Amino acid sequence: MKVLITGVDGYSGWPLALHLLKRGHEVVGIDNFLTRQRVAEVGSWSATPILDMHERRKALEEHGVKGFRFYEGDLCDFSTVRHILHKEHPDSIVHLGEQRSAPYSMIDVHHAVATQCQNITSTLNIVYAMKDECPKSHLVKMGTMGEYGTPNLDIAEGFFEVEFRGRKDRVPFPRQASSWYHWSKVFDTGDVMLANKLWGLPTTDVMQGVIYGTRTAEISEDWQLTRFDFDEVWGTALNRFCVQAVLGMPLTPYGKGGQKRGFIALEDSMQSLRLSVENPAAKGEYRVFNQFDEAYSITDLAKLVVKVGAKLGISAEIHNSYNPRVEAEEHYYNPLHDNLLKLGYRHQRTLEEALEWMLTDLKRFHKRLEAKREVVMPRMDFREADNRTRLHIAPPTRRAASAPSPPKSPPNLVSSSSAAEN
Amino acid sequence: MKVLITGVDGYSGWPLALHLLKRGHEVVGIDNFLTRQRVAEVGSWSATPILDMHERRKALEEHGVKGFRFYEGDLCDFSTVRHILHKEHPDSIVHLGEQRSAPYSMIDVHHAVATQCQNITSTLNIVYAMKDECPKSHLVKMGTMGEYGTPNLDIAEGFFEVEFRGRKDRVPFPRQASSWYHWSKVFDTGDVMLANKLWGLPTTDVMQGVIYGTRTAEISEDWQLTRFDFDEVWGTALNRFCVQAVLGMPLTPYGKGGQKRGFIALEDSMQSLRLSVENPAAKGEYRVFNQFDEAYSITDLAKLVVKVGAKLGISAEIHNSYNPRVEAEEHYYNPLHDNLLKLGYRHQRTLEEALEWMLTDLKRFHKRLEAKREVVMPRMDFREADNRTRLHIAPPTRRAASAPSPPKSPPNLVSSSSAAEN
Repeated sequence: MKVLITGVDGYSGWPLALHLLKRGHEVVGIDNFLTRQRVAEVGSWSATPILDMHERRKALEEHGVKGFRFYEGDLCDFSTVRHILHKEHPDSIVHLGEQRSAPYSMIDVHHAVATQCQNITSTLNIVYAMKDECPKSHLVKMGTMGEYGTPNLDIAEGFFEVEFRGRKDRVPFPRQASSWYHWSKVFDTGDVMLANKLWGLPTTDVMQGVIYGTRTAEISEDWQLTRFDFDEVWGTALNRFCVQAVLGMPLTPYGKGGQKRGFIALEDSMQSLRLSVENPAAKGEYRVFNQFDEAYSITDLAKLVVKVGAKLGISAEIHNSYNPRVEAEEHYYNPLHDNLLKLGYRHQRTLEEALEWMLTDLKRFHKRLEAKREVVMPRMDFREADNRTRLHIAPPTRRAASAPSPPKSPPNLVSSSSAAEN
Repeated sequence: MKVLITGVDGYSGWPLALHLLKRGHEVVGIDNFLTRQRVAEVGSWSATPILDMHERRKALEEHGVKGFRFYEGDLCDFSTVRHILHKEHPDSIVHLGEQRSAPYSMIDVHHAVATQCQNITSTLNIVYAMKDECPKSHLVKMGTMGEYGTPNLDIAEGFFEVEFRGRKDRVPFPRQASSWYHWSKVFDTGDVMLANKLWGLPTTDVMQGVIYGTRTAEISEDWQLTRFDFDEVWGTALNRFCVQAVLGMPLTPYGKGGQKRGFIALEDSMQSLRLSVENPAAKGEYRVFNQFDEAYSITDLAKLVVKVGAKLGISAEIHNSYNPRVEAEEHYYNPLHDNLLKLGYRHQRTLEEALEWMLTDLKRFHKRLEAKREVVMPRMDFREADNRTRLHIAPPTRRAASAPSPPKSPPNLVSSSSAAEN
């Protein structure tokens, strides 16, 4: 099959390319390298010394891996997206090419606007280009388990049957996101549902849990490494705990640490996405997969890092810190996740196994962590309207923000004597 | 009280200004006149010969109405919004300044992107500017009953109590919109809920039904008239039926005509919004009002236009037409709407009364309708990806679309020999 991966240079994108190529699929990638630029914006870099796309492609050739092609392009340009779909007619499009950090979206109003506008624009451009060029292609769109929030209910896979005032219907499970980023993914879900209704585009909507790990079956040599973010803005809590442990810092769960989320190994996420691609949704079908294996609290994660660290000679302590987020710190959490099992999905990599690899890799790249020590500990606050000073970053560049540039002078009150609008 | 009205030049904005001024409130308006420009884009104009803002302000002065001030500005510019809130510190902000046409959003991908990005950007800019400048001000944000879609359930006011797999919670009522525009309003709802959670902004979220009418208690003279759109893109079904009747055209309900929606008179919508402003939400409160009085099917509306038309010597026929929308044409519809009643709201203007005024006014402005005869009958199709040719319109201008401009040349496949990205 031919699979187009948007965001192919990213944490999931590159391992997915390697995984699908290994299975004999043809992979077309697209990326604009904005994540690399944005991680630099907050003064950080990947813990793993990853190759750039030129080097990645050269390495694929040198190792005799065929079937990969790459476009550098911006998904926010409709003509770019349409051009690529016109040329390529992929069987599946796995859409990973979005801004994927909640803290990044909470830096200030410009990062909020950029995150939401760019994410929904990329998705709208893809569904419109599919309608024009390849309406039979299968769209695998990446959402997040965070769309559902943490209601005091079991969380259904996309839809649930409810009774209200004596009547019943099957309706979308309510979304209650807790960052501009998470809302942007809810927005994409709405748009993809409508595109499916309008044009019948076969759609798999993946509500992805938090991914962990540095390795997959296809990542054993250094040239294959994917990025691993550990700074406050781009790293997951688990990634930061690992890096804190390696750097001899205290592990800092936010608040009480009872916040639970669904987790999945990088390797198992690749398995899931591959199964989605190899078993595409039917014409007109819109299906939702809650893609995670186990739920852990933030405290569970910290304790597990301490435990696995001890095996590797790393001693670490847990110091609960101020919670910069607005979220319940103790809550019920039981999302359903049956749909992928029906496709043959099997959980293969436990968190404990993955943690051994992660800590081992991070020890090896110790110097890269030391060099960025200052970006690990939390400084930002979701309750603040402007976190730029806390993060020591400049206002966003033109490229990073899709909002129109601010006017040169403040708007004037149109006074009675000088009114002259339009 | 001091009330900031965004979109003050619009169909609801201008009557709301007149209504609040009459009640002794101070009104600060902001608009960028984009609706006037966009109605012209599809070859239409307002049936009523409305004054421009310069003339409106002059007329207010001439009639001794004090307390109105106006800023020309774009809500998508954060610095504009922040500057105005810094200067004005309004008690309430009634946010009407968004693209409000479903068909406009369905013209093509550029109109879809512009609608969604501009609407959410304006709302994000307002909540961020409020947090910075006036966090105690009350936000009255305009949503739409169309956010809920037409589930086979009673529709709650924002939230409902559900039981699922033996557990209960109060969660947002599921949203199922049927155009990019309607989804943009769902997105705003999500963002406003989060802003309320982050910063406690007192918020009234109005799920507005379809508004009808040309008149309010404050619109009796021609200088006071508000716009009345009747073309396929900007007019409501009811407006088009009235204009079709006056022009001697058949009334064209889409499809079977069993689509039901909630309706409210312009006058009663002003009453509701005024009650919201005069009884603001408390600090930290997020409340939802389903703002409509009666539900009618499209066929009900057409029949009522025929009936009221007959009284005024207008004879009209109903010809059901192709349905360009993707919607259920027969469905259950029973939204709850109790919250406004608790504030003292009373339904004052029936649809039949309003229709007499509407048809009488339209007969008077007959020549303005004749001049734009060709934009009344439906031509566009929500199932098409590009309706520009059907509507005889050019691609959107830079100003109309917030998406980055397309690249100058198509993206190149980065070939092995010439790879040089970043």
